[in-house]
Parts: sequence; C-alpha cells; structure tokens
Amino acid sequence: MRTIEWHDNAIHMIDQRLLPQKYRVLVCRDHHELAQAIRDMAVRGAPAIGAAAAFGIALCAVRSQARDSEQLLAELDDAAREIAATRPTAVNLFWALDRMRKRAEALRGQPVAAIAQALVAEAQAIADEDVETNRRMGRFGAELLRDGDSVLTHCNAGRLATVDYGTALGVVRAAVEQGKRIHVYADETRPRSQGARLTAWELMQDGIPVTLIADNAAGYFLRTGKIQAVLVGADRIAANGDVVNKVGTYKIAVVAKENGVPFYAVAPTSTIDMSVPDGDAVPIEERCATEVTHVEGVCIAPEGVAVANPAFDVTPHRYVTAIITERGIVWPPFREGLRRIMGMEANDETPGA
Amino acid sequence: MRTIEWHDNAIHMIDQRLLPQKYRVLVCRDHHELAQAIRDMAVRGAPAIGAAAAFGIALCAVRSQARDSEQLLAELDDAAREIAATRPTAVNLFWALDRMRKRAEALRGQPVAAIAQALVAEAQAIADEDVETNRRMGRFGAELLRDGDSVLTHCNAGRLATVDYGTALGVVRAAVEQGKRIHVYADETRPRSQGARLTAWELMQDGIPVTLIADNAAGYFLRTGKIQAVLVGADRIAANGDVVNKVGTYKIAVVAKENGVPFYAVAPTSTIDMSVPDGDAVPIEERCATEVTHVEGVCIAPEGVAVANPAFDVTPHRYVTAIITERGIVWPPFREGLRRIMGMEANDETPGA
Repeated sequence: MRTIEWHDNAIHMIDQRLLPQKYRVLVCRDHHELAQAIRDMAVRGAPAIGAAAAFGIALCAVRSQARDSEQLLAELDDAAREIAATRPTAVNLFWALDRMRKRAEALRGQPVAAIAQALVAEAQAIADEDVETNRRMGRFGAELLRDGDSVLTHCNAGRLATVDYGTALGVVRAAVEQGKRIHVYADETRPRSQGARLTAWELMQDGIPVTLIADNAAGYFLRTGKIQAVLVGADRIAANGDVVNKVGTYKIAVVAKENGVPFYAVAPTSTIDMSVPDGDAVPIEERCATEVTHVEGVCIAPEGVAVANPAFDVTPHRYVTAIITERGIVWPPFREGLRRIMGMEANDETPGA
Repeated sequence: MRTIEWHDNAIHMIDQRLLPQKYRVLVCRDHHELAQAIRDMAVRGAPAIGAAAAFGIALCAVRSQARDSEQLLAELDDAAREIAATRPTAVNLFWALDRMRKRAEALRGQPVAAIAQALVAEAQAIADEDVETNRRMGRFGAELLRDGDSVLTHCNAGRLATVDYGTALGVVRAAVEQGKRIHVYADETRPRSQGARLTAWELMQDGIPVTLIADNAAGYFLRTGKIQAVLVGADRIAANGDVVNKVGTYKIAVVAKENGVPFYAVAPTSTIDMSVPDGDAVPIEERCATEVTHVEGVCIAPEGVAVANPAFDVTPHRYVTAIITERGIVWPPFREGLRRIMGMEANDETPGA
C-alpha cells in the first residue's frame, strides 16, 4: 500500500512509529485522529503530511452534519486550524490546507455533499500528484548520479516520507531503474532514528544496497572519499534557497562542501516557501525530551537531565549544490532560479501557478 | 572512588557499561580479565585505558609464579601483547605498556617479588600522574573560557575517561573552580552514548549545568551562536597535530570552524604520538554492528541490515584551534609546537623525555 490512502471514508496509513519491527496500518476515522497521527509522527515526512492534511480536511467534510456550505466551510476552517497546529516546520502541511481551502471556497453555495465529494477528489489528486511529482524529481535527479556511486542520505526522504516513491530516495530509485548501481549510506538520524528504522527498511525491501551508520560516522565516510553525493529531502525551502530539514542536515552539508561532495536537496515545489526570505525565518519545532532520553521506552540518560531537542536545522544555501524539483533542477543563484521555477515575475512578491 | 584503582592485588573499576542506571564496581583479578574489560569498554577513555593497561601488567607480575626475572619478563611481554591487542586507536594504551616494559627491563636480574612490587608502584604512579596531569591541563585550559560560556563536548572526556578529573571536562571543572559559570552541551555520542550516559551523569553529579542534545543538534547550536567553545579529548594526536578522537569529532570541528567557534583538543602528552606523521596513519577501530543496531538489547534497525561502525575519526589539524596539554597550550603551527612540547630537537625523529 501507499504510505497514506483513502478507503471507505477513512484515512489509512502505515504506522511509522512501529517500523521496522511491526508493520501495522493505522486508520483515522475523523480529523481529530488524523491531527493526532501527525503530531505523534505515525505519519511524517513533509510531502506525506501534506497529503495527510488534505485527507483530514476531506474527512471532516465527509463526516460533516452541516446544513449548508457556509456552515461546512466554517467547520473546515476549524479543522484546518487544528491540523495546522500539529507541526510548525514543514510547509507542505500549510500548502495542502491552503489548496483544500481554496477548493472549498470555490464551491461555496453548492450542496454540502457535493463539496465533500469534491474535497475527497482534491485530496486524492494531491496524493496522486505527489507520486507523479516524486517520479519526475527522480528522473531529473538520477542524471546527477553515476553508475557505482555511493550516496549519503539523512532521515527518511523515501516512500514513507511521501505518498509513494520518495524524494531523495526517489532519485536513488530512478537511478537504479536506469540500471545504475547505487549504494546508500543511511545515517541513523537520532533522536527518532528514521534512517535506521525507515530508510534502511524501505531500501532493503527494494533490494537497494544500504549500509547503516551512526550519525557521527557520516563525516568519516565523507572525508575518506566513500560518498559521491548527499541526497536529502526538505521540510521547507526559503526564497533564498536555504534548506530547512531534519536536524543534522546542516552538519552534513558543511562537511560535504568541505570535501567537494555535492549536496542535493530533493523536494517538490510544494516545499518551497517564497514567503520566507531565508531559513532563519522558519519556525523550528522543539520536540519532547524523551525522544532523546528514551529508546523504545528504555531510559538511556541520567534521570532528570536537561535536554534540548530541536527537530530541524537550517542549511544556508551556500552549502547547497542544487535543488531538485519536479519542474527541473535549480542551480545557484537560487533566489532567481526559485522565482523562475515558481512562475514568479522578477518583481513579483507572490508565487504564481 | 577513582575510575580505576588498585586494592588488594586486584584492579577495581567503575563499570561504565552500566552507568547511569547502575553504579557497579568491576574487579579484575588477572590480566586476562583486565584485557576483556578494556575490550568490552567497562573501562574506556584514552588516559583511563592507559592506566588500566599499566595495572594489568602489574597484576600479571604480582600473580606470576616465575622463578626468575627472565621468566617474569617473558610473561609480562605476553601479557602486554594480549592487552595491546584489545583496542588499536588510543595510543595511551601502548604508551603505558611501553613505560611498564622499560621499568621491568631496568630491573632485569632482580628478585621476582621486587620487580612485581616496583611495577605496582609504577602503575600507581601512572595513575597518580594522570590525575595531576588533568589538573594541570584544566588550569591551562580554563584560561581560554570566560564566565558565562557554553561549551560543547563530544563523547566523554571526563573523570570517567581518565583516572580522575578529566581532560576536556577537567578544563570545565577548573574554570568552575575559578568561579566561572560554564554551561555544557553534551552530545549523546551514538553509537555507545557516552555523552548521554557518562558526561551528562558526571556533570550532574558535580552540579555543573549540562544540556543533553542529539549528535545531530550540535550544528544547530553552533550555528545559532549558543556555543562559545568546543572541548574534546583525544585518543591519539599525530605529529602534525591531527586529532584522532571518537567518531563524530571531525564533523563538529569543521562546523565549529565554519562558525568561528574555537575547537580545543585536551590531551596529556601521553596521547601525542610523534611516530605517526598524520591522523590518516592511525588505525581506526571498527566495532561490532550491534552497537548501532541495538540499544539496551533492543533492536532498533531492520533485521540483517549491513552496518559500518568506525569508532574514531580524524580531525585534520587545520580545524584545531589549540591542543591543551599538561605542559602548556600548543598553538599552530602544530608540528613545531608539538616537537617543542615533546622535548624533541628540530631534526630529532624520536620523542625525548
């Protein structure tokens, strides 16, 4: 199944908190459950939570008892606020909610059931487009990899972070489909270990060679020439090309540059936020201390220790070799390249298309 | 108690595999048990394993049934080979074994019991000197810290990595003793989590403010100006100033330099190996996969995943701001500075004193 699917007026998702030990499907039957699933990271990854948010709005519409479109739209606004409050950093969440809101607004005055049906179709379109988008990015990005390359990736930017296929790992999959032999170094990605739990698992499922390393070992392999490219996803890309992604990305990017290894961010245009001038304008989510102090419920740190747990960091654009999107590869200077790919005129302050 | 002590013809050590959950003293009654304790990392940290190795030789001598000094020296050579084979990277182990061998050689022809007694005294001297050395380094290094500084440290270079007081954390302790307020960011240091388990624990014991972070978060705090200095220990320092230390140190050093944050290695001269021209000539220990795939016996990765687990990495000297030793602070150019501090003449190829 896809990472997230709509069946029988419910949202079905692979529960990513349990992988790789358990494969279980979580079913959300109202948008409150969906919001909780995003908050708890049963579903995670910027594109996947975008699709999840869209399905959440569709679910709210389908279950609504509203007597007219005005009332429905008010309910949808409440649902969007609840879903928007789950996680602050990945912009795809807000992008998807905005797209769903526009679709609903356009149908103001229509029967409630018709609006609900249209919103289910819109969410399904977002999900389907995500898969197509990933395949496009994969084809663009695969051109940057050579047969025999080893790639370092961080966190999980694979099919589990998207509806299917993946962003960074989509590029790997596309290269492999082209017949290239690609080996992946997956770093563990503490504190939630998405690299160990999800990236290693999904690559092994696909038979793509993967070596798991501690986050600390990435520098060792970059410096000793074992890695030919770094491929990561993104949670938000600012107008100047700064990449906000899973904490730890920044250190990798700096060390990659220091060693002449290209660093590519792979992200759909829905991850690009032209309204933020740079990465430092993006809110960085701080998550709970137990992510750091506990593993599988076991405490691995002293009782009562103070913890800081930022979930993301900012990689300034000067460390980014290129940004791979479904509309093509953006090279520096990023400000101009991103405006072009987002369909903005030279002096236009708002994104087009 | 100290990290490692000699009582009643046995070696007593704090079992570092069990902290912070359990405080237990491990007693080694022959040098085979001591070698196993080093291999299993019940005792770890370059200076501590140096002292452990010395006590191991003393233990072999004390327990020996040799009828003369020739036979004893042959037994000690075998013991030294067994202890030397435990861990390849930290040079203090070989330094201590060499010092014990020289002491024994000097007593060739003496009664076995007299040699054994002298070797116990020599091992005890190595341990006592380590504590004094750390206090000296602390005083030198503390001058580099200002009241109110936050310091990032990696792994555990504290009293648990030494006989007492610590190298990097010795500098923190000395600054605190001078009345400076110092806050420490301790990174977790996967895969064995010495930062979370040992550094956080020993600083909390001393009432020194410490914040535990994931290894991945170090870049976030370096880039956002929260850290004024990086202090790490070392397992071996090459003649050109390259620092071989716990894997992950290299990434920190590169990112510290990128952000104008000074990076200090704190290590006794017994960690400096003038016989290796640079860090890449130092053997890097590869440890077992389960360190990465398992935490507290629980598997956190897919069954059967390939793992690479280098335990150390090389930080080229260009990222090192200064090396703090018990004989003073060495600044670049390191080749000359290290020769001077090691008491070598300009064209001398072997270390003096």
